[in-house]
Amino acid sequence: MQRYFIEETQLQNDLVSITGDDAHHIANVMRMKQDQEIICTVPGSSTVRCTLTNISSEQITAAVVEYVENTNELPISITIASGLPKGDKLELIIQKGTELGASGFLPFAAARSIVKLDDKKASKKVDRWQKIAKEAAEQSYRFIVPTVEQPASFQQLLNSIQYYDACIVAYEESAKTGESAGLVQTFQSLKEGSRLLVVFGPEGGLSEKEVNQLEEKGAKLCGLGPRILRTETAPFYVLAAASFHFELMG
Amino acid sequence: MQRYFIEETQLQNDLVSITGDDAHHIANVMRMKQDQEIICTVPGSSTVRCTLTNISSEQITAAVVEYVENTNELPISITIASGLPKGDKLELIIQKGTELGASGFLPFAAARSIVKLDDKKASKKVDRWQKIAKEAAEQSYRFIVPTVEQPASFQQLLNSIQYYDACIVAYEESAKTGESAGLVQTFQSLKEGSRLLVVFGPEGGLSEKEVNQLEEKGAKLCGLGPRILRTETAPFYVLAAASFHFELMG
Repeated sequence: MQRYFIEETQLQNDLVSITGDDAHHIANVMRMKQDQEIICTVPGSSTVRCTLTNISSEQITAAVVEYVENTNELPISITIASGLPKGDKLELIIQKGTELGASGFLPFAAARSIVKLDDKKASKKVDRWQKIAKEAAEQSYRFIVPTVEQPASFQQLLNSIQYYDACIVAYEESAKTGESAGLVQTFQSLKEGSRLLVVFGPEGGLSEKEVNQLEEKGAKLCGLGPRILRTETAPFYVLAAASFHFELMG
Repeated sequence: MQRYFIEETQLQNDLVSITGDDAHHIANVMRMKQDQEIICTVPGSSTVRCTLTNISSEQITAAVVEYVENTNELPISITIASGLPKGDKLELIIQKGTELGASGFLPFAAARSIVKLDDKKASKKVDRWQKIAKEAAEQSYRFIVPTVEQPASFQQLLNSIQYYDACIVAYEESAKTGESAGLVQTFQSLKEGSRLLVVFGPEGGLSEKEVNQLEEKGAKLCGLGPRILRTETAPFYVLAAASFHFELMG
């Protein structure tokens, strides 16, 4: 069944009202007809299954059939902090990371980031990234749309660590020396509802200075197995491992 | 350190001889100089750290400094069977799947596969896929290059199940109904050296008939958490979960 995210104000008296891109998608792309069903989620609030009662390209109305329980979110909230990578790698991280359950994405300018974004470019990028997150969230039946933050400086990243229950750094050198207990121990230390920040370097990795500064703020260095993962692959590992640990082993 | 895969015959009397693309890469792309070190792996046999003694675009000679222990392979061998997906998704599956430790890839023509490959097209594709696997294996410090099989028919896939110690099917409907024990139980039932086949549908998923036929051959249906993963994301989940289970929790 097609799924759409809607605003709180679009769901009133058990009626859903949809306009804009989503109305176009329902009427013209999916060519849906009266009495067909869709799922609408007010992020973080409620999800309803509903029947289309009125369809035009400008305005869709749907009647709520039932309120659906939301159980699709990871028990812990994971924010992926990525040192700005080259090209469109962050798009891949956001799309697949959203499918795999990330709560948010925090791009930051790492010492070895080659890409530099001025404020104007950054805002345009964030709009695009947020759209990718929304589409992936719909596709993967998420209950929330992960937030994509404005690219931060490394100092801002350091300052944000205090707002999380734990912070880990995916560190290539840890992987090479066979560090294997950190991720397991971190997961075991977190309880439902905890907030975890995971920091990944850009292509060249984090600098030693950056790693030291993160450690001073309480971040723990973790290996992700013995194989060297690319900067865009490492977040998938952490998110899948978290799902395996919290949702399958539960 | 740069890593290259070599043939058994290229390593003789503690000397490594490199020609072709890799020689070009060392001499002209990396512009390496005498006395710099590289790592060479004879897949499945040995890995050596060696010093460049002679460099030209046609021929590189290197002297072995030490034999390195190989510990970068997953304790179980996992083959990813992908219902042929659209576009270049299989390239992404092979690249990232290799980083994450897959032993091999077995594309197959699923009922809902939209792509059809004749033998000639398939051979060209396999060459390209195998090249992607080799490059990703070098990059991620693998000890073997995963094999990419010629695209199989569904019947050939069914026939191949008997050669594995276990076979699981990543099944969307299992995920939706909250199946969560299958993957954990399967991992727990496998010991070091076991061979696991994991079957993934194409974009539209496996047909009910295909799922039934796989089950008749002993395959187990598994959910991969409550979120719906795209066809190219689900293999990453299984491989990362396997690494977490066998290498980190170990």
